Amino acid sequence: MARRKEIIVGVDMGGTSLRALVVNEENRILAVEKTPTKRDQDPENLIEDIAAEVEDAVESAGLRRNEAVDSSSGLVHAAPNLGWKDVRLGPKLSALLGVPVLVENDVNAGVVGEHALGAGRGVQELVGIFVGTGIGGGIISRGELYEGCRGAAGEIGHMVLEVDGPRCGCGKRGCAEALASRTAMEREVRAAIKEGAKSCVLDIMKERHKERMTSSIIVRALKNKDRVMRGVLRRTEYYLGILVASVVNLMDPECVVIGGGVAERLQEEFVGPIRKTARKYYLSQRDAARIKIVPAQLGDNAGALGAVVLARKRLHLAR
Amino acid sequence: MARRKEIIVGVDMGGTSLRALVVNEENRILAVEKTPTKRDQDPENLIEDIAAEVEDAVESAGLRRNEAVDSSSGLVHAAPNLGWKDVRLGPKLSALLGVPVLVENDVNAGVVGEHALGAGRGVQELVGIFVGTGIGGGIISRGELYEGCRGAAGEIGHMVLEVDGPRCGCGKRGCAEALASRTAMEREVRAAIKEGAKSCVLDIMKERHKERMTSSIIVRALKNKDRVMRGVLRRTEYYLGILVASVVNLMDPECVVIGGGVAERLQEEFVGPIRKTARKYYLSQRDAARIKIVPAQLGDNAGALGAVVLARKRLHLAR
Repeated sequence: MARRKEIIVGVDMGGTSLRALVVNEENRILAVEKTPTKRDQDPENLIEDIAAEVEDAVESAGLRRNEAVDSSSGLVHAAPNLGWKDVRLGPKLSALLGVPVLVENDVNAGVVGEHALGAGRGVQELVGIFVGTGIGGGIISRGELYEGCRGAAGEIGHMVLEVDGPRCGCGKRGCAEALASRTAMEREVRAAIKEGAKSCVLDIMKERHKERMTSSIIVRALKNKDRVMRGVLRRTEYYLGILVASVVNLMDPECVVIGGGVAERLQEEFVGPIRKTARKYYLSQRDAARIKIVPAQLGDNAGALGAVVLARKRLHLAR
Repeated sequence: MARRKEIIVGVDMGGTSLRALVVNEENRILAVEKTPTKRDQDPENLIEDIAAEVEDAVESAGLRRNEAVDSSSGLVHAAPNLGWKDVRLGPKLSALLGVPVLVENDVNAGVVGEHALGAGRGVQELVGIFVGTGIGGGIISRGELYEGCRGAAGEIGHMVLEVDGPRCGCGKRGCAEALASRTAMEREVRAAIKEGAKSCVLDIMKERHKERMTSSIIVRALKNKDRVMRGVLRRTEYYLGILVASVVNLMDPECVVIGGGVAERLQEEFVGPIRKTARKYYLSQRDAARIKIVPAQLGDNAGALGAVVLARKRLHLAR
């Protein structure tokens, strides 16, 4: 009996870009499409863009869509980067495309991707920490995505590391995100320069016509042996090490995956110092080496690949 | 067919006292025995004391022990309060008593007790925080005790709330335990008095021949409207509120149980302000009221009752 070919499209809808990838039943990527996200547009229009992107990706893979069978629900409660609130993304996209659609938070999907196909393969208890503009996270427990009682679990960036510390984007004070995200690093670099420290960071940004300190700018400044950048990075790694240890002391996972642009580009140069600080802060030193702290492996595809894995499971498609 | 009577003895072996309670198949307490723990004695002697205590409790309940069937393993890796390291408590006690024995960390057992029979009945996802000399914690996930990959999960007191903050008993800096335990409160009260603040706390301690600021002394000082005590308590509640929020942002549990002497004595007067701060620090305000923050209900019996519940499950006794 011939098995029907199973094709799944994973979409990662970020604040800056929209990525769709098509995989076959072995999770081999058949095609990737990427376009910039048009911000602040009407949800209806963006949903149509997503549908078009999916169609394009399927076509790039040389495939034709099957006819609709059923659709799953997927409500976006809030996507501040897009200006969305309570958008029925799943049902609408499903109606447009005529196939089942599953919607998941991008960081959770990224953690599922790294667990199923990346740096966390084979472990049962995993925590993912993604350091970018903010700090996102997700938890795998007993081999499955752990979402908590309201679907709100995994907000590692909003664990407080410094009571009454610097103001966070969320409005509170001292969150990990306010101390160790790329945004926090940029704030510290700018503050040091304002106080008279010599740094090439702002020059590189100007040269590249960038308004924000992206991870490639961080890497460039480190290659130039920029001392301000190096100092700020060391402090960030220290904060992240303590954050990892706090999570380990609470949850004792087998593996902590560190993702995001800086981790991807610097790999062990970034993760090594985080691991070193974390181990110092573990309460139980017994079998400390058993807890793996490793860089993510799937890069920008993590979210879309994780969505594929979740879709396969939740939509009860046969593997 | 008559069901065989099932009797389980729960023992809570603390640094200051040894408690044994006997329950029937409906978890009704038939007898409680309590004696002070003799510190720094040889593990062999203490194990014999425990065995004698169990015998006494069973006798107090008017029962006779059944003959041995089987025994379960139970190794104590480290019990610093008792000066123990790698003691084969389970097998030894089992040999002495001739019945199956299960050994579990006291805080984990306390959380299981509160979940099964106390403040957390009926929820699937629960976090317990016990504030005493230190801060202990435990996690219930999907209705079961969550122990992590090395059995080290739940160390909520060693999540860092203040990077480079005050030195903790564990040797690191800024742990919740170093900021919000009863030990930390006493340190702050003494510091305030040293700086000239007026407080009756030391007088109450002297009057009661206590060297440490126990929770009953805290309650007494609050009744006297001691301003130093009130200020230190408010700050402690603030730290604990932020700690609870950090855990909620990470794990999104249904219920957080606050235990320990201060919580038991002050109840809502202590838990109310913790809840208020915690809610401010939740990242997701959606359904915030769904997360219950409540005082523990089982008092000093929580650990021994939790041990009974675990024993029933793990030793595969029919309920």
